[in-house]
Amino acid sequence: MENLTFGEYSLVFNAYSFTFATMMAATIFSWLNLKTVSPHYRTALIITGLVTFIAAYHYIQIFHSFDAAYDVVNKIVTPTGKTFNVAYRYVDWLLTVPLLLIELILVMNLSKRDTARKATSLGIAAALMIILGYPGEIAADMQTRFIWGTISTIPFLYIVYALFFGLKASLDQQPAEARGLIKAASYTVIIAWGFYPIVYLLPMLGFNGAHVAVEIGYSIADIVAKAVFGVLIFTIARTKSEADGYVQV
Amino acid sequence: MENLTFGEYSLVFNAYSFTFATMMAATIFSWLNLKTVSPHYRTALIITGLVTFIAAYHYIQIFHSFDAAYDVVNKIVTPTGKTFNVAYRYVDWLLTVPLLLIELILVMNLSKRDTARKATSLGIAAALMIILGYPGEIAADMQTRFIWGTISTIPFLYIVYALFFGLKASLDQQPAEARGLIKAASYTVIIAWGFYPIVYLLPMLGFNGAHVAVEIGYSIADIVAKAVFGVLIFTIARTKSEADGYVQV
Repeated sequence: MENLTFGEYSLVFNAYSFTFATMMAATIFSWLNLKTVSPHYRTALIITGLVTFIAAYHYIQIFHSFDAAYDVVNKIVTPTGKTFNVAYRYVDWLLTVPLLLIELILVMNLSKRDTARKATSLGIAAALMIILGYPGEIAADMQTRFIWGTISTIPFLYIVYALFFGLKASLDQQPAEARGLIKAASYTVIIAWGFYPIVYLLPMLGFNGAHVAVEIGYSIADIVAKAVFGVLIFTIARTKSEADGYVQV
Repeated sequence: MENLTFGEYSLVFNAYSFTFATMMAATIFSWLNLKTVSPHYRTALIITGLVTFIAAYHYIQIFHSFDAAYDVVNKIVTPTGKTFNVAYRYVDWLLTVPLLLIELILVMNLSKRDTARKATSLGIAAALMIILGYPGEIAADMQTRFIWGTISTIPFLYIVYALFFGLKASLDQQPAEARGLIKAASYTVIIAWGFYPIVYLLPMLGFNGAHVAVEIGYSIADIVAKAVFGVLIFTIARTKSEADGYVQV
């Protein structure tokens, strides 16, 4: 592990703890709200909670891995030689990113055939995007990082295309009250996800503290893409439930 | 870390443990009571529980951080050199203080437009208040502490103003039985929150044991602002449910 100042160390340490707390809170929020939406949207909400739950698990692991990688005594930070496990993020994304897209498809309440088709194609594209990015993340040289980053952009662009154009037709079948929210959720995916490749490329700029910037950047992107996105999915589910005339008892 | 007597150490150690237990108990109380209030108030109660849950998480972390910062052998307390992480409190407040205000707004059951508008403006003011206080909390000199403390008072005063005058109009739309309770909840926010700046300024008085006073002071303020406030929110939700004719099944 590279050397960190005490300020950098604290920033990263607290960002992990903050992200863990946010993910757990978002998980419980989704699951406790299950009965406040119509039965049609409960599976979407269960999956919304699963995404933040899986992220919470990985953040507590990342937190402990980071904690073990450094000794901090009298505000002097020394690497212990223990490995900081970068793979936790990729394992997390491999599970959560396909699920995130499935949340969005489920909350749209399309036909069974459309749901299955879109979930399969977007899920596979999301998994490919993550798998193809990983060899670059662990590469020592920046050229390898760049090449794998570029290849993994292909499934990413397919997802952006599918969200913008593929879901557009389905959007017209949504209740008027929910259309703006579904658009907001699609944009959140695209904007938050657009943030990941930027963070991914940061080490290529070669500035000091790139590692710190990457960790903070990924944490913010994860919070937006999972917890904020989850609250949007809940709001869509609640709005559509009301439009359907669902009354909670 | 500064040196502590065994008595001071025990006081702080037990205050953290007490606060953790109180927060967890308050969390479970809110969530187990979800079905005892009408569906309109359940999201308020879910968030009430989230606030104390997030606080419980941070208190157990603070507890462990404090435990690691000192060695206690034969009642002699020696700093280990490991950092006591002050940031946990600020990370906690950044998440919980906006949520606290949202609880209060949600339990009032205003129009969607009013709820969204008030939640946004109060949420942003609360986050600003916390963020602006932090540079002062970690500052070594008292002048910096005072300057940031003063700046962060501006959003605080806005919140006090909004609670006193902004919610007053909405208060008339509340059932008569609930008005006194809602006033009590607003006063609890203002009184408990007025306690934080006093604790914040304690180290400027320069008396011995300021650190101990700050930790005990923040713990008491957190219990009042989160757990006691949460019980008030529950009581409001229950009173309004009864006024609405809600009968639990």
